[in-house]
Amino acid sequence: MTEQRLAALEARLQRIEDERAIERMIASYGPLVDAGDADSVAALWADDGVYDVENWLMKGRNDVAAMVRSSGHQDFITTGCTHFLSPGVVTIHGDDAVAVCESTLLLRRGTTYDAVRAGVSYFHLSRAADSLHGWQIVKRITRLLDGTEDPRALLSDGVAGRILP
Amino acid sequence: MTEQRLAALEARLQRIEDERAIERMIASYGPLVDAGDADSVAALWADDGVYDVENWLMKGRNDVAAMVRSSGHQDFITTGCTHFLSPGVVTIHGDDAVAVCESTLLLRRGTTYDAVRAGVSYFHLSRAADSLHGWQIVKRITRLLDGTEDPRALLSDGVAGRILP
Amino acid sequence: MTEQRLAALEARLQRIEDERAIERMIASYGPLVDAGDADSVAALWADDGVYDVENWLMKGRNDVAAMVRSSGHQDFITTGCTHFLSPGVVTIHGDDAVAVCESTLLLRRGTTYDAVRAGVSYFHLSRAADSLHGWQIVKRITRLLDGTEDPRALLSDGVAGRILP
Repeated sequence: MTEQRLAALEARLQRIEDERAIERMIASYGPLVDAGDADSVAALWADDGVYDVENWLMKGRNDVAAMVRSSGHQDFITTGCTHFLSPGVVTIHGDDAVAVCESTLLLRRGTTYDAVRAGVSYFHLSRAADSLHGWQIVKRITRLLDGTEDPRALLSDGVAGRILP
Repeated sequence: MTEQRLAALEARLQRIEDERAIERMIASYGPLVDAGDADSVAALWADDGVYDVENWLMKGRNDVAAMVRSSGHQDFITTGCTHFLSPGVVTIHGDDAVAVCESTLLLRRGTTYDAVRAGVSYFHLSRAADSLHGWQIVKRITRLLDGTEDPRALLSDGVAGRILP
Repeated sequence: MTEQRLAALEARLQRIEDERAIERMIASYGPLVDAGDADSVAALWADDGVYDVENWLMKGRNDVAAMVRSSGHQDFITTGCTHFLSPGVVTIHGDDAVAVCESTLLLRRGTTYDAVRAGVSYFHLSRAADSLHGWQIVKRITRLLDGTEDPRALLSDGVAGRILP
């Protein structure tokens, strides 16, 4: 009986730790990318992880780090910006996980900030026990919420925890 | 002694699971309503749950689903929008709970997004063990932060965990 | 063996409770300051805690409460505003902790809200078992993300959990 109760507690706690590890990764993305910390951003991804942002398909950590170091991104952070992500909604499937959040990009224009993007980010992650965060992004798909249907489907898929092909 | 420690762990873990279930419901609201997923939004409420938004009083899940399907809301999501909610602050009182968050609604206008709303959402929830999320919204009150005093009182009541009549 | 498993569970759970207490404090800040609840805002800080916001250095709870009661802040909340903070990224070091988030301040202008600030908040907290939240802010540094390098360094320091001098 004690054994069963201990095992149940361990499993419940593990679930929460898994979810929290992923929530923390998502919460870290904005601060890290706005800091221009290319290596720490890239470390959120698996070695061969994908970051698919509309017309920019990044494959692997080097591509992700290169995005942070690109003149486009450097222009954002030297102008003044925040990539603001909502709390992640996480679903664990054993050693895989799905998460979703919404985000906005605020960019400084004189004395105020313009919301130049509002989007959805869908994440497929896998457990990587020896990695920095215990989990790594296998694929992140980010789309502008521009009124079309595909980004809305990502929101539904994300909350439902569906692993996309 | 082992019995006492197990019981204490179980109670502490249950508390966290309860709070997290509600935090996740609140974090899911924006993605689900921006997806236009009327049934999943409605399932956050109790059968007879109330959603009180300024001059629109919804009673029951059908009313909530009808709001998502309304032309007003459909116009928002086909224009491009995000209902962006801050992390919920949750207080559990046995089988009742109170939560509060702030929110903004970003709506696409050409190449940028306007913040057309900024508001407070106060939630009273009740435990519903057999339901999808384990908890259901009994009443949600959403008010524009327009400079008047009533919405500010909702913020205070929410953080303090006061159950409103 | 049972003893070891119980002790491990207790330590893991304590860690999560610590992190969550701080996450909740950060999530409460926006609602409390937008409510104008000066005493509850001040109670997030240690007696001699510091709040360093660009050219305004507050020392101690009285200073923090005075900021909330200042005409500048009262103008914000009677105009209509939300101090919107992203989920905190928390790192516990025994009885100290570091947290970081990004934030924006939306201020009502007619029928929409302007983002008049976008910033980083770095927190150093210490455990205060007898206090309201179990933790208190020793120092909070808030800086505008204005394109300069110092605020970006705060973001990196915060995510890495570095305690600043």
